[in-house]
Amino acid sequence: MIKLSDFSTRAPEGTDEDDIRDLAKDYSRRIAQLQEVMYAQGKENLLVIFQGMDSSGKDGASKNVFGRCSPIGVSTYSFKKPTDEEFSHDFLWRVHKQAPRRGEIKIFNRSHYEDILIQRVHGWIDEKRVDQRIKAINAFEELLVFDNHTTILKFYMHLSQERQQEKLQERIDDPEKNWKHNPGDWEEAKLWDRYRACYEDAINRSTIPWHIIPVDQRWYRNYAIAKIVMETMEKMDLKYPTLKEK
Amino acid sequence: MIKLSDFSTRAPEGTDEDDIRDLAKDYSRRIAQLQEVMYAQGKENLLVIFQGMDSSGKDGASKNVFGRCSPIGVSTYSFKKPTDEEFSHDFLWRVHKQAPRRGEIKIFNRSHYEDILIQRVHGWIDEKRVDQRIKAINAFEELLVFDNHTTILKFYMHLSQERQQEKLQERIDDPEKNWKHNPGDWEEAKLWDRYRACYEDAINRSTIPWHIIPVDQRWYRNYAIAKIVMETMEKMDLKYPTLKEK
Repeated sequence: MIKLSDFSTRAPEGTDEDDIRDLAKDYSRRIAQLQEVMYAQGKENLLVIFQGMDSSGKDGASKNVFGRCSPIGVSTYSFKKPTDEEFSHDFLWRVHKQAPRRGEIKIFNRSHYEDILIQRVHGWIDEKRVDQRIKAINAFEELLVFDNHTTILKFYMHLSQERQQEKLQERIDDPEKNWKHNPGDWEEAKLWDRYRACYEDAINRSTIPWHIIPVDQRWYRNYAIAKIVMETMEKMDLKYPTLKEK
Repeated sequence: MIKLSDFSTRAPEGTDEDDIRDLAKDYSRRIAQLQEVMYAQGKENLLVIFQGMDSSGKDGASKNVFGRCSPIGVSTYSFKKPTDEEFSHDFLWRVHKQAPRRGEIKIFNRSHYEDILIQRVHGWIDEKRVDQRIKAINAFEELLVFDNHTTILKFYMHLSQERQQEKLQERIDDPEKNWKHNPGDWEEAKLWDRYRACYEDAINRSTIPWHIIPVDQRWYRNYAIAKIVMETMEKMDLKYPTLKEK
């Protein structure tokens, strides 16, 4: 049973920022190399899920960890408010369409977890529906794994409330961040405790485990995620197919 | 535990063909009326799955039962051999995309069940994968039901082996049926017993039950299916939305 309050939102004491920045760059380069082989082989594939409070750095993680990969084999899908067409189907309909194909890395910026987070926090769905959806999510993720060789890495961007306030304020103060400002985010931020409770529950009821990433310092976030992605890919049986196999 | 050999492939003794043909027409007209309301209301929706051996009359059932509905709210999707793109994903990826939207009737001519039938009969997947897929199918169908108000009607087109041989021969003898002829069908027909065993197992392990339809006589098939569809739709809470609700 995971309690989020047991996890720090910051890098371990004494971590050297320069070293960590160098390592993060090395890892990200290595990920790009491994992805080329994955794409060529066309078998293994990776689904990366980024979830976290507003301004927890989901966009930045995509950019910094995967920014050295060729966009041929890597893409990010950002889940926004569902369209009318999407609302006319079950909550996983639009998600399943975006599942990675073999050889590909697909990054979900937000995901099907929103359907048991924002919807639950606001009371748009009842607890029975939450239970059904959690069961459906687990079945869906298992399907990708057993039937399409997908590896799923789920990252919870663990942010402190103080740091969130700072980041939201930066979006007002910094002209280059104004485009990210959304007055609604301040309203959602007031629901911090409820979001935390729902995240904690979602994490604890997942069959495929979550990685909890301290994200108060962006440099440490990039390193921590890149390390897990790289190590996961190193363990895959990735190799270029030979002429004989074609 | 259902045994297919306990079910007749023919209409009950003494059934009057003319009466049955009239009833089938009435039911099909009523289905078209009910579908208009379903479409206008945009909430309830229906997934109809037709599975059965080659020449068991899946196309004919679509045409006769739903041929009076407006194609605005009713469509058939025929599952063929998967494309390369489809093969690069899990077996339910292409199926989920075709799930009915609210207000719609979607007919599956073949379906995700092929992935535990043809693939199992030919030994392209092992029994562990069969178990995983059956579990995934049940979870997928339940998802449509609880999260999108979908009603699922599954029809097994119960055909005798003798009748199949006649129908396959007709495709050679009748110029208007030549287009349906496929030499491969005769090869598949030799695997009759294995297909039957796999169908029986799929039927018995489904959470959402199957209707076993005697299809040796097409007129009785149309009636039996239309009756179930109509009765199912009559039980739905279908009504035109009023101005106030818009």
